[in-house]
Amino acid sequence: MDEITLSINLVWMMLGTILVFFMHAGFAMVEAGFTRSKNAVNIIMKNFLTISLGGIVYFLCGYAIMFGDSFGGILGTSGFALNGVDNLSFFIFQTMFAATGATILSGAVAERTNIFAYIGVIILMSSLVYPVVGHWIWSGQGWLTNLGFIDFAGSTVVHLTGAVAAFVAAVMVGPRLGKYENGRVNIITGHSIPLGALGVFLLWFGWFGFNGASTLAADPKLVPIVITNTFFAAAAGVVVTALYTKFRYGHIDGSLTLNGALAGLVSITAGAANVSIVGSIIIGLIAAPFLVEGVRFIEWKLKVDDPVGAIAVHGICGIWGTLAVGLFDIGGQGLFYGGGFGLLGVQAIGVIATIAWVSVSVAAGLLIIKAFVPLRVSAEEEVTGLDVIEHGAPAYEFQDIFKGSAVRGETFAYRLTHFGKTNNNVQEEHV
Amino acid sequence: MDEITLSINLVWMMLGTILVFFMHAGFAMVEAGFTRSKNAVNIIMKNFLTISLGGIVYFLCGYAIMFGDSFGGILGTSGFALNGVDNLSFFIFQTMFAATGATILSGAVAERTNIFAYIGVIILMSSLVYPVVGHWIWSGQGWLTNLGFIDFAGSTVVHLTGAVAAFVAAVMVGPRLGKYENGRVNIITGHSIPLGALGVFLLWFGWFGFNGASTLAADPKLVPIVITNTFFAAAAGVVVTALYTKFRYGHIDGSLTLNGALAGLVSITAGAANVSIVGSIIIGLIAAPFLVEGVRFIEWKLKVDDPVGAIAVHGICGIWGTLAVGLFDIGGQGLFYGGGFGLLGVQAIGVIATIAWVSVSVAAGLLIIKAFVPLRVSAEEEVTGLDVIEHGAPAYEFQDIFKGSAVRGETFAYRLTHFGKTNNNVQEEHV
Amino acid sequence: MDEITLSINLVWMMLGTILVFFMHAGFAMVEAGFTRSKNAVNIIMKNFLTISLGGIVYFLCGYAIMFGDSFGGILGTSGFALNGVDNLSFFIFQTMFAATGATILSGAVAERTNIFAYIGVIILMSSLVYPVVGHWIWSGQGWLTNLGFIDFAGSTVVHLTGAVAAFVAAVMVGPRLGKYENGRVNIITGHSIPLGALGVFLLWFGWFGFNGASTLAADPKLVPIVITNTFFAAAAGVVVTALYTKFRYGHIDGSLTLNGALAGLVSITAGAANVSIVGSIIIGLIAAPFLVEGVRFIEWKLKVDDPVGAIAVHGICGIWGTLAVGLFDIGGQGLFYGGGFGLLGVQAIGVIATIAWVSVSVAAGLLIIKAFVPLRVSAEEEVTGLDVIEHGAPAYEFQDIFKGSAVRGETFAYRLTHFGKTNNNVQEEHV
Repeated sequence: MDEITLSINLVWMMLGTILVFFMHAGFAMVEAGFTRSKNAVNIIMKNFLTISLGGIVYFLCGYAIMFGDSFGGILGTSGFALNGVDNLSFFIFQTMFAATGATILSGAVAERTNIFAYIGVIILMSSLVYPVVGHWIWSGQGWLTNLGFIDFAGSTVVHLTGAVAAFVAAVMVGPRLGKYENGRVNIITGHSIPLGALGVFLLWFGWFGFNGASTLAADPKLVPIVITNTFFAAAAGVVVTALYTKFRYGHIDGSLTLNGALAGLVSITAGAANVSIVGSIIIGLIAAPFLVEGVRFIEWKLKVDDPVGAIAVHGICGIWGTLAVGLFDIGGQGLFYGGGFGLLGVQAIGVIATIAWVSVSVAAGLLIIKAFVPLRVSAEEEVTGLDVIEHGAPAYEFQDIFKGSAVRGETFAYRLTHFGKTNNNVQEEHV
Repeated sequence: MDEITLSINLVWMMLGTILVFFMHAGFAMVEAGFTRSKNAVNIIMKNFLTISLGGIVYFLCGYAIMFGDSFGGILGTSGFALNGVDNLSFFIFQTMFAATGATILSGAVAERTNIFAYIGVIILMSSLVYPVVGHWIWSGQGWLTNLGFIDFAGSTVVHLTGAVAAFVAAVMVGPRLGKYENGRVNIITGHSIPLGALGVFLLWFGWFGFNGASTLAADPKLVPIVITNTFFAAAAGVVVTALYTKFRYGHIDGSLTLNGALAGLVSITAGAANVSIVGSIIIGLIAAPFLVEGVRFIEWKLKVDDPVGAIAVHGICGIWGTLAVGLFDIGGQGLFYGGGFGLLGVQAIGVIATIAWVSVSVAAGLLIIKAFVPLRVSAEEEVTGLDVIEHGAPAYEFQDIFKGSAVRGETFAYRLTHFGKTNNNVQEEHV
Repeated sequence: MDEITLSINLVWMMLGTILVFFMHAGFAMVEAGFTRSKNAVNIIMKNFLTISLGGIVYFLCGYAIMFGDSFGGILGTSGFALNGVDNLSFFIFQTMFAATGATILSGAVAERTNIFAYIGVIILMSSLVYPVVGHWIWSGQGWLTNLGFIDFAGSTVVHLTGAVAAFVAAVMVGPRLGKYENGRVNIITGHSIPLGALGVFLLWFGWFGFNGASTLAADPKLVPIVITNTFFAAAAGVVVTALYTKFRYGHIDGSLTLNGALAGLVSITAGAANVSIVGSIIIGLIAAPFLVEGVRFIEWKLKVDDPVGAIAVHGICGIWGTLAVGLFDIGGQGLFYGGGFGLLGVQAIGVIATIAWVSVSVAAGLLIIKAFVPLRVSAEEEVTGLDVIEHGAPAYEFQDIFKGSAVRGETFAYRLTHFGKTNNNVQEEHV
């Protein structure tokens, strides 16, 4: 019987593991789609390195610091390279989570960051920054757990951690060339909304594993609530962002509405197991204006250049989702359910502590990295595009007929006879 | 023991739920790929709003009308906002199905429909039109169920319903500008076959959950049959459509062959649990010419402009799949297995009743919507593209080098030194 | 109780089946992205036909030859069209594997192969070539199984088989026009790294089902090891390929690094259940230089034109992964664990036998196919692109504004007023 229960929970956890892995495809597509095509290979390389190197570093070191025997509720101290660890199913699920913090950062510093500096960031985040927060909240031995802090699947552990790191890095790396000129804020649009939209769908899909398998068991009383709440918060985020941007900017904004789904998802992540369906809808609904105004505030007031809006999505909505548990918890601790301010206060402490730790450790880490490699690429490389300089080839090359060039006001009729007869994509020998 | 059985079925249902959710990514990519790039953001926004708003409306109202206590086998009357409902696992699975009807419609009226009129359609479909058909067939209390109507996973409930709504809407909204001119039928091609192909793969992938989890349990005697039949009907649809278009048009048509997979999938949806593997192959095989000739008939004879072929795929093949159960049922009721015409007649009644209800209710609904917002965008907006007018930005912007412009018959050699040195994607400040 | 165990294993196997199906989406996107846009529809059609026709052929014939009653350990002889077969769950899982061999080949002969010759290859591979190797190794009755050959999920059965077929076909079809000219080796780059990257993510995602469900049961002692090893080998492949190409070519190469993930995955497929995590990392790590040098060796020394690098990825890494079991097996047979050379020798025999059988049978099969249809398209078609000639339309058509044409050194400001006012994607009537 125990064997059978193990098997069922195994299937659920492995499904969750695979889905969270797949979120990295979503991050890659979102970050590529929302940035310029001349840097698409670069951001994709960064995402592949994040999950790959991040996973290896977490295996060697991060998991031990996160789940090892606790040193005063601050960090773990045993289980390096899985020494003495036998719950492989739990470990591999956690590994997929671990690289997410660095991934969030990669979007915020896209299009100008040196890939070797970024490799340093992956190591920093996966070995130390994220595991320490994880130890506080998910190890069962952490000081925040002892206070009663609730973060079911990581609004704080994963998303706020990633966003604070992203904020610090975006400030230290500086804005993209041309973003802020002569007191003006220029819009630098991404190159493919369909790619970004695909990425958001992949993330939403994967999030059902992210939140769903954070139950750690195929519990019929818990899992359906988690899945349902996850869906509805995202749905509310989409609908309200669409309407809010129509009201605010006069049109249903494409990239913001896509981010609205992520805003809802980040916000419900802390409380997916603790709130009602109506609660989840309200949480997602409120996430939408937080997102839209947050993006504006960071970009226009703070003048921090975050190409994909990661800081607002994961940071502001991460904070909102963490605090929302203190408001909407149906287990007796939510303010709106007569639970008073106790939990809300604990949630706020967790948010502040996470911000403090991550900002200090990432700033220090980046200073160390900067002593070895420059944080950003040269101006010439940034203008030309990182792809051809750092990766030897552009992301796209089309040989199709482009019918009509609206740029030049011309219209070309489509004729088979127009198809070029030369073998026009042959480069000369290299090396 | 009961707890364990619950857990297993839970995992299967949750997997199905997640996969059906993911089909909305498939619909979005298919509809974007098969339409013009100047309207890609718009169709993606419509797809995100469909699953999001449709889900919320279904939670508030649709589920009650579909599965509530029956009023005469016609519609449900209890359980609004899940009042008194406790099977959350079943509810969330059904929610993912619910928005599909509106999604099918969105493709058929793409590239010219006002997004606010379409929002009205989402509400109409998710709250009333689809739930009523669902009540008739899937509530266990409906009049069609009482007659013995069989629709395992929704050839009629989901696909025919969506397609009839699509047909009515496409007629009322009218064709795209330039589609029918001076007695000629013009071809308006989509902008990305790879995007459409990805979408078809996503739909096929998700369909294993759509059909597979319609068993509602991880039943070892039923599930493998359903999964196997689902695969083979789609496979037969692909192979025969490829050969049929070669024979009919002289080439293996790309977009029709992709739709051939969907034709097979729609056709097997009603009978996936009721036919043999050979039956499923024959069903998919016959779906192929139905698709190809159906697209032609709708576009050239009826002169209804359906950019993605949704009416033929979901409507004609939906009817075929529903009737096919009456032919191929191996449970004793199939005509070809000596079951006589009884089931076939019942299936036909279900098809006719669904067409009648959906066409009348959608036509009435669209007239009401039209009293508040225009059904289509202005001619100027349609020509310019919906993306820049309604969403403020185009779907694509490339900064890469395009090597060789076949349009102008020129060939550009690939040289790194040719890469532009200007920061050429910076827009001026806006608000 | 037995019923419950059946249900759990069913869910795991069905999840695996669905994931392996989804790998065909990954192959399609990788092969489309890594080849030129003028041939994208063609390669997508080939991929859809591979899984579809390949599945049907495997149902009719391949499964019987692979798993039927053995004729001397060489091939199976019963169960055609599933006659007498009742384990549908196992059958459908195997069906998804079966088409993979042909798919690997399709990438290697992309951009110049006649689609009807390729249809012949699908039939050849799915009915005979692959099933015979499968019978030797996976039927439980094969001569290689009797020798003690270990190939857990198919480094040899699937990947080496596909790669040897690919090598033979690439030689017989010949290189693309312009690839080898006047003693020079020209680089012909693919058209979309993001599409290729998406494909690699889809493959990696699906591979968890490919390896994971090859356990054939939701075994809590085995599955987590398999999933963990699968992840880490791929991760090591990515990291080391990135660094190795930096060292070798001066930049982190985009398409090679993406292929690095696949190299790791192919390499761990034989031993995923038999090696430690550290073993899997070393296996993936060594796969990276094998990949990079293998691509170079095949392309520059052997002068075999393989547009996507399939022969190196699936062949060289397939051999490496198969032999690696003889080195790293922790069950007592690995050379590095004191097991001596016994298993290593058996693994080498399996590799040699597979190369011999596949190369001879595929060469013979292609000669027969060539008697009926030409193996490659005309030079004119190859230059124009296969899409417009064979499929009647190009893969892409953009109506968006392209801001700035770096090719011509010009910069166009982005202005709404520049958007064309003509309905510029309307073709004239056809047929």
